[in-house]
Amino acid sequence: MLKRYLLAPGPTPVPPDVLLRMAAPMIHHRAPDFTPIFEAAKNGLKKLFQTGNDVIILTSSGTGAMVASVNNFFNQGDHVLVINGGKFGERWTKICSSYGLSVKEISVEWGRAVDPDAVKKALAEDKDIKGVFVQAVETSTGVYHDIEKLGRIIKEHSSALFIVDAISALVAHDLKTDAWDVDLMVGGSQKGLMLPPGLAFLSVSEKAWEMNGKSKLPRFYFNLKKEREGLHKNSTNFTPAVSLIIGLEEALRMLEQEGLQNVFARHAKLAHATRHGMKAAGLTLYPQENPSNSVTAVNAPDGVDGQAIYKTLREKYGVTAAGGQDKLKGKVFRIAHLGYAGVFDVITAIAAVEMTLKTLGHPIKLGSGVAAAEEILAEAK
Amino acid sequence: MLKRYLLAPGPTPVPPDVLLRMAAPMIHHRAPDFTPIFEAAKNGLKKLFQTGNDVIILTSSGTGAMVASVNNFFNQGDHVLVINGGKFGERWTKICSSYGLSVKEISVEWGRAVDPDAVKKALAEDKDIKGVFVQAVETSTGVYHDIEKLGRIIKEHSSALFIVDAISALVAHDLKTDAWDVDLMVGGSQKGLMLPPGLAFLSVSEKAWEMNGKSKLPRFYFNLKKEREGLHKNSTNFTPAVSLIIGLEEALRMLEQEGLQNVFARHAKLAHATRHGMKAAGLTLYPQENPSNSVTAVNAPDGVDGQAIYKTLREKYGVTAAGGQDKLKGKVFRIAHLGYAGVFDVITAIAAVEMTLKTLGHPIKLGSGVAAAEEILAEAK
Repeated sequence: MLKRYLLAPGPTPVPPDVLLRMAAPMIHHRAPDFTPIFEAAKNGLKKLFQTGNDVIILTSSGTGAMVASVNNFFNQGDHVLVINGGKFGERWTKICSSYGLSVKEISVEWGRAVDPDAVKKALAEDKDIKGVFVQAVETSTGVYHDIEKLGRIIKEHSSALFIVDAISALVAHDLKTDAWDVDLMVGGSQKGLMLPPGLAFLSVSEKAWEMNGKSKLPRFYFNLKKEREGLHKNSTNFTPAVSLIIGLEEALRMLEQEGLQNVFARHAKLAHATRHGMKAAGLTLYPQENPSNSVTAVNAPDGVDGQAIYKTLREKYGVTAAGGQDKLKGKVFRIAHLGYAGVFDVITAIAAVEMTLKTLGHPIKLGSGVAAAEEILAEAK
Repeated sequence: MLKRYLLAPGPTPVPPDVLLRMAAPMIHHRAPDFTPIFEAAKNGLKKLFQTGNDVIILTSSGTGAMVASVNNFFNQGDHVLVINGGKFGERWTKICSSYGLSVKEISVEWGRAVDPDAVKKALAEDKDIKGVFVQAVETSTGVYHDIEKLGRIIKEHSSALFIVDAISALVAHDLKTDAWDVDLMVGGSQKGLMLPPGLAFLSVSEKAWEMNGKSKLPRFYFNLKKEREGLHKNSTNFTPAVSLIIGLEEALRMLEQEGLQNVFARHAKLAHATRHGMKAAGLTLYPQENPSNSVTAVNAPDGVDGQAIYKTLREKYGVTAAGGQDKLKGKVFRIAHLGYAGVFDVITAIAAVEMTLKTLGHPIKLGSGVAAAEEILAEAK
């Protein structure tokens, strides 16, 4: 028996209570027993998103809500700015291009956070920019972009919509949608929300709804105006992923019970301990700045293949982490501390990495990283 | 305790074995333990769809695959023919119109099946028709359209694609995708496949793939060409609904174990017994012809509100059926015999309807419908 641990940046582990709720007999999405569940989930999402606006619930991968952020608010030829600092930044560009938008990219070196001044400059150079797209956490590099600062700059220098992919950031970072003037905030179920994949979320500001009225791009499945009408009646346009919404209500209840500020602090602490432990084990971190609270990208040491680390973690030790994507393949491995994660997940991760390096013949002082993490994670009396 | 029964035409009950499989700890969609599950599901779908072509798996409601049937194969202004015999026929028209297609509708009286000669005539009148859209089972009326006959006519008189929404028909009807020249066959998880909602399926013929190469409509989330590339590597473009795919593998295994021909025969028998029982209880059926094996629409008797029947079934007897949609609201109620359904679900449904009519003060000979159904459902020695 190889006991298994899921420490990848999505899907993340689902708490047993949530799994059991979702394993209850199916109920009908138009029948009265579903209404209070849907309503509680809807309201819980607003608290998590820290917004007074509607948060639309879509049955799709997170990418579905990214698409909805484009084809509900813009028109062919619209100028938009994409902050591209990794694989998911690239995705914004691809989606916008698919719908005929004119994309200007700020290319951010992988592993770095965007320089807010570069955004200011780009907005000054083109007054026609109608939307600025970014990731809160770029999953491929583990970097957090400063959403608060970006929101302030965009508000000061432009009338563009501010669109944030928070799929990997939500729950792990304190994201103040309204206070930071984020117009569209995108979330997904399979990350901090501790659910299986299959639901996407999107908060929409009043300013965005005004643009929605002028957007002529074709849409039917991701028609947010219709979804909003449904939402106000505790319903969806099309048959939703009922069992995942039942799980969502339970997961949101768990987060609320812990207290959102405690949830954010827990993630910050686990991330800090992970980074500290990895460094104490002699490794270096991939991000040059702003490492996220969701996922830590670690450089494979010289002479060790990052994919071999990923494989050894999985095959010898039962730990499913993530390798590097695209140009980082073989160069890094990534460990998540996201959602249903506690101190011993961090200990497990660091111990598994130490033992994996030993297995692969890399010189390592076993226990050194774990000791450093324990220093941070041990509670006061 | 009011014991509950779900007898609506989707979501339908999920077998306990499937619920339990889906309640197992989450696994990663790019890790090797998911691959054989995905591959088995993919191959099982091909058998169920009776096709040698790929069946694409999408994370969305069934409507997502309906949209994908439009925006992956056509262009703005393309002439298409929609057979509209109910609420879901209307949906085809709405989707096609959203994407700028030029829709000609064959309006079929609700409760009737399309006259194949009307299709022949429409195809003769407009040689530019590039696609013909229909439902196999129109869920709102409970009518089955003769897909075999339609396939033959379309093949003989046109080069148009034949697109069938089989969301409610799949598993309940013997649908021969390839033998009947269906180019695009659409399915959903929450009907005959006995799963929660959240997955959609779409089989695509070679002829359709050729049209795909010429289609310029914008698409990103529902990009079938990219999904096909993924499918061939037992993968999906975006994080799929992992737990639902695990359930899908289990559900397909159950259907295969029963034998697909036995599955179809079971549905035909349950549907026959339901119709027979309702008539013996003094009720009349809504369909004028071709009643489906998936769902039976029954007229509310004179002086009885169909919504009152729906509500009484639910509130007094714990049975969730369905009311009428749109113009049938208050006029009919609908009972499904779809997916995880056996003889005593039919008995329960008929007994509940009899007792509901009694509760509502409608003259009824209690047990008359049940007796008639038993005649059909009792096995030979």
